[in-house]
Amino acid sequence: MEIVKGSGVIPGVLLAKVNSPADLKKLKEEELEQFCAELRQFIIDIVSVKGGHFGASLGVVELTTALHYVFNTPYDQLVWDVGHQAYGHKIITGRRDIFHTNRVYKGISGFPKRSESEYDTFGVGHSSTSIGGALGMAVASQYLGLKDKQHIAVIGDGSMTAGQAFEALNHAGISNSNLLVVLNDNCMSIDPNVGALRDYLTDITTSHTYNKTKDKVWELLGKISKFGPNAQEIASKLENAVKTSLLKQSNLFESLKFRYFGPVDGHDVVRLTKIMADLKDIPGPKILHVLTKKGKGYKFSEEGNETVWHSPGLFNKETGEIIKVVPKEPQPPKYQDVFGHTIVELAEQNKKIMGITPAMPSGCSLNIMMKAMPDRAFDVGIAEQHAVTFSAGLATQGMIPYCNIYSSFMQRAYDQVVHDVALQNLKVVLCLDRGGIAGADGPTHHGAFDIPYFRCIPNMIVSAPMNEEELRNLMYTAQLDEVTGPFSIRYPRGNGVMVNWKTPFKKLEIGKGRKLKDGKEVAILSLGHPGNFAVKAIEKLETDASTGSATGIKVAHYDLRFAKPIDEAMLHEVFARYKKIITIEDGTIVGGVGSAILEFMAENNYSAQVKRLGIPDKFIEHGEPNELYTECGFSEEQIYSEVLEILKEKKEVKVG
Amino acid sequence: MEIVKGSGVIPGVLLAKVNSPADLKKLKEEELEQFCAELRQFIIDIVSVKGGHFGASLGVVELTTALHYVFNTPYDQLVWDVGHQAYGHKIITGRRDIFHTNRVYKGISGFPKRSESEYDTFGVGHSSTSIGGALGMAVASQYLGLKDKQHIAVIGDGSMTAGQAFEALNHAGISNSNLLVVLNDNCMSIDPNVGALRDYLTDITTSHTYNKTKDKVWELLGKISKFGPNAQEIASKLENAVKTSLLKQSNLFESLKFRYFGPVDGHDVVRLTKIMADLKDIPGPKILHVLTKKGKGYKFSEEGNETVWHSPGLFNKETGEIIKVVPKEPQPPKYQDVFGHTIVELAEQNKKIMGITPAMPSGCSLNIMMKAMPDRAFDVGIAEQHAVTFSAGLATQGMIPYCNIYSSFMQRAYDQVVHDVALQNLKVVLCLDRGGIAGADGPTHHGAFDIPYFRCIPNMIVSAPMNEEELRNLMYTAQLDEVTGPFSIRYPRGNGVMVNWKTPFKKLEIGKGRKLKDGKEVAILSLGHPGNFAVKAIEKLETDASTGSATGIKVAHYDLRFAKPIDEAMLHEVFARYKKIITIEDGTIVGGVGSAILEFMAENNYSAQVKRLGIPDKFIEHGEPNELYTECGFSEEQIYSEVLEILKEKKEVKVG
Repeated sequence: MEIVKGSGVIPGVLLAKVNSPADLKKLKEEELEQFCAELRQFIIDIVSVKGGHFGASLGVVELTTALHYVFNTPYDQLVWDVGHQAYGHKIITGRRDIFHTNRVYKGISGFPKRSESEYDTFGVGHSSTSIGGALGMAVASQYLGLKDKQHIAVIGDGSMTAGQAFEALNHAGISNSNLLVVLNDNCMSIDPNVGALRDYLTDITTSHTYNKTKDKVWELLGKISKFGPNAQEIASKLENAVKTSLLKQSNLFESLKFRYFGPVDGHDVVRLTKIMADLKDIPGPKILHVLTKKGKGYKFSEEGNETVWHSPGLFNKETGEIIKVVPKEPQPPKYQDVFGHTIVELAEQNKKIMGITPAMPSGCSLNIMMKAMPDRAFDVGIAEQHAVTFSAGLATQGMIPYCNIYSSFMQRAYDQVVHDVALQNLKVVLCLDRGGIAGADGPTHHGAFDIPYFRCIPNMIVSAPMNEEELRNLMYTAQLDEVTGPFSIRYPRGNGVMVNWKTPFKKLEIGKGRKLKDGKEVAILSLGHPGNFAVKAIEKLETDASTGSATGIKVAHYDLRFAKPIDEAMLHEVFARYKKIITIEDGTIVGGVGSAILEFMAENNYSAQVKRLGIPDKFIEHGEPNELYTECGFSEEQIYSEVLEILKEKKEVKVG
Repeated sequence: MEIVKGSGVIPGVLLAKVNSPADLKKLKEEELEQFCAELRQFIIDIVSVKGGHFGASLGVVELTTALHYVFNTPYDQLVWDVGHQAYGHKIITGRRDIFHTNRVYKGISGFPKRSESEYDTFGVGHSSTSIGGALGMAVASQYLGLKDKQHIAVIGDGSMTAGQAFEALNHAGISNSNLLVVLNDNCMSIDPNVGALRDYLTDITTSHTYNKTKDKVWELLGKISKFGPNAQEIASKLENAVKTSLLKQSNLFESLKFRYFGPVDGHDVVRLTKIMADLKDIPGPKILHVLTKKGKGYKFSEEGNETVWHSPGLFNKETGEIIKVVPKEPQPPKYQDVFGHTIVELAEQNKKIMGITPAMPSGCSLNIMMKAMPDRAFDVGIAEQHAVTFSAGLATQGMIPYCNIYSSFMQRAYDQVVHDVALQNLKVVLCLDRGGIAGADGPTHHGAFDIPYFRCIPNMIVSAPMNEEELRNLMYTAQLDEVTGPFSIRYPRGNGVMVNWKTPFKKLEIGKGRKLKDGKEVAILSLGHPGNFAVKAIEKLETDASTGSATGIKVAHYDLRFAKPIDEAMLHEVFARYKKIITIEDGTIVGGVGSAILEFMAENNYSAQVKRLGIPDKFIEHGEPNELYTECGFSEEQIYSEVLEILKEKKEVKVG
């Protein structure tokens, strides 16, 4: 067996023969179990040393194998929901030998991606799109007369709670298209799944509904027996009648006109292939309910905390020990943790504060409040729309909800922010985690658009802290009585810059930025965390590294703090004093805070050279944040260069 | 009886006594029926002469009366979904005598609105927010210890299909809050309701599920009787057992942990009050399924087309004749109709074209295609998110979907546009109807934000036609092979400007605007329909109305046509020739196309005076479009004044 180049990992004997679904189909049925074991081991071997999502892919090894064994991919359309469970799929479909580049800059994506493989039929990253996407495919095939073509959406029970999945079910139920929804029921989103649907699925699984009724019927039949003979025969017939009606009619999915099959053991690969082969011949929309276990087949993830093993980082695969690099010196905390601890601190002082997250309690650290104050912190499931409207409802009663949603997921709740929060001018604090470049998760997860999409909403306050203290102060200010409407705070994934971050709360004036330093000729206006890149670039520009003496360059630096309302007094000062301006933001430059500056200039008839740095007008792929900042052009080094560049340029504003 | 001032309408004897829920509660139970008749008549009297939504409010007269009779509003929180059915609610809660100002500029809103009345607990206009909003209220009350406080969401079966409603049900089901969902089942959105849920509700209503099973059990029991005595007694006991289990468990809402009650006749006001009084004492989330008829109690709307009577305009209440003002000369068509006819024309030529609307077939005129090509045009229900992702799925199979969604409703599908369409660069044509000021429907329906929220998305083409021919040509161009990604076309509600609109198709170059005329000193850059206001303003500026001779003023006019990509060659020409620029768009000026011009200037070091006209940074209330254009500052007259103003100003661009 060859070591896969660059990975140091040897695939098992069967896996080594499989580099496509065609290869997989050559395996005998009795080899499938071993193949699954090898596929699972390969994922463990690589993820333990390269990182990535883990539990989800381990849980669907058998399901993935069965799907590619039975269906004619890529002609048959296989759509993965969310997609972080698709590692096995990637390995089977030609990417075994580059799988170790997963989530690495310029390597393969951690999610299915159409441009990467014809087997990746629908790009994902956000949840609950698979049924609608697959239905679109199925309806097109129906129109094109491709009767044999199969369309399969694989969706987790967590993703099923999002409204979009329900909308798609509701539409699919009245279509007569060839759609198979595989409900991968593992009781988890990233965090344990919540909601009434979850309870319902458990109920189906344990057959309470049916069992209870059966018991009741039996009890009655017991009484019948005293009335006459042949009770056994009657009993059996009655039981069948009730069972048929009840199981069929009691099913939520059958209510929505899907044919329901299951639940079945998602780790019995041979049985799965048989069921799927049968389902191929059944027309119309159908659902196969498969029970799996996240992290299945790896002792430590099976027995450990499923949230931790969702994406554990590097780990020792023999001991299950998650490798934590312990830095020599204390490090600044993650912005997430600052949020998590600060909201508890604030909520202790202000009884009106509540916390809301749609299925990201551990990701955004609201889990700290959920533990400390369970009656005041809510995980509403994967349901961004509801999270915002629910928050608006709380606000009508005088509560102060802090609704924490990743920037790219807030796109799901955009209408609710406009219609339920801003239009009613309700005091909801919208905390946008993952504002800006998100790193290895890539373009579906970068928070690139929130500055323009929030800035254009009336009544909205749009802020971004440059560091931990600023985040705390913005969170503190947001709950004060002087704030009477929506207040958004956006901050990036990852670490801030202050080791001693637990500073006392200080009220900030709404719409006021801060001058960090004066300069001459050129001023940098930054919003949020990238202000720290500017600080370093300026240091380098002003002091000669080899001699330690001043270079003579002096760069002014202003931290805007608010993209809206923008600090007009500060900007008047800036434009009175500087001819050359560089704006920096960790977001798209199309309509972002740089454009807000241009709008201010137009309204006040200022003219100056303005260079806007931020995310350019394209989708940015995955990679380490620093790699991506460089790709975008606002890393420390590039800010350094841009200042030199703008200083070189003659001031030659073309007056039309 | 006094005529209500300004309306010419006399309320009935009981209604005349009721100007608050307290007044209503003074009526005797046996007077309620007459009260309902009077309330209904009052709505007919006023809407027939003043216009407004009609069928929905007529359908809930008894429900509205019962709710205010039983519940302690406004302490108890009553949340109306969508809200165009809330006329009775407005009349009962202190707005009887100003009800005739409904939807009029500066008059009362056609929707519940918090700033208008304490009885309007949650502002609406978009659908499916009521359960989440009311749940937020209920959870707050629970936290505050207000155990007696009731929280009621009234939601139609159409609104129930939107994912957000499902998300809220899923969350409510695991809360233990005091929430009553009244499902107002009238089988309609604006158009007949669609989807599997609709079928399911019909199924409950006609009790097929229960009846079928009962029949089966009876059949078996028939056989039992031959086995022994006492068959009757057994039969009765068994029936009860099966009925209880089955009705309870077979219910979709019970699956989601709601207690389900109904269906009940929504036009029996006394029975409704009794049921509601009982429900007050039942804790936890519960659903009351009420059957109503849209347009109930008015012969012509009961018997006529429900879609037409949703919002019929003015009508003769005696004859049911809808009053159509027949203009003396042929008028330009609505942009909607141009869309509706043009998509059929295009689809006849290009077999890949499909049409999608989320529950607005008559509003956007896709109904023309649905009738002509039922296998290629889809109403997916109130489900904007699904509409877009479904379209993306179609596009993966080579179809060319035209997905038509009102601009303000597209906010619901923002993430799907980013994540499923633009990121995958799929060729989906996004037609944004109601782009810009929408008129009497007010701030929930104005399409104010789509230019900035679409312009910041990579790969997206953002266009707006200035007239019918341009709309046709944009629609034609969008389907050509050279277009390989998302293409958006936004146009306003209402009439265009071309009587002879059915012009031959002409391919437009992507990202190319058109120069309408040259000028000197000042240039107007307009996007979309308001370009026509500019044309008229320019005529007036250039020609003295009294003498007919030239004034000497010459204003250049460019129709941008594309907000993205913007026509850089054209802009270079503009900034080379003109020092004073006015931009005009029917959308927010925060991040809009005016800002795109400023971005171009900054990138190319141009300096000029730029005045941006458009929707200012505030929510614009309801009224006639012309009233609102004036409020915003981009009516014909104001463009006229702005040109004179900018010409007067000395060119004194402050160079920093």
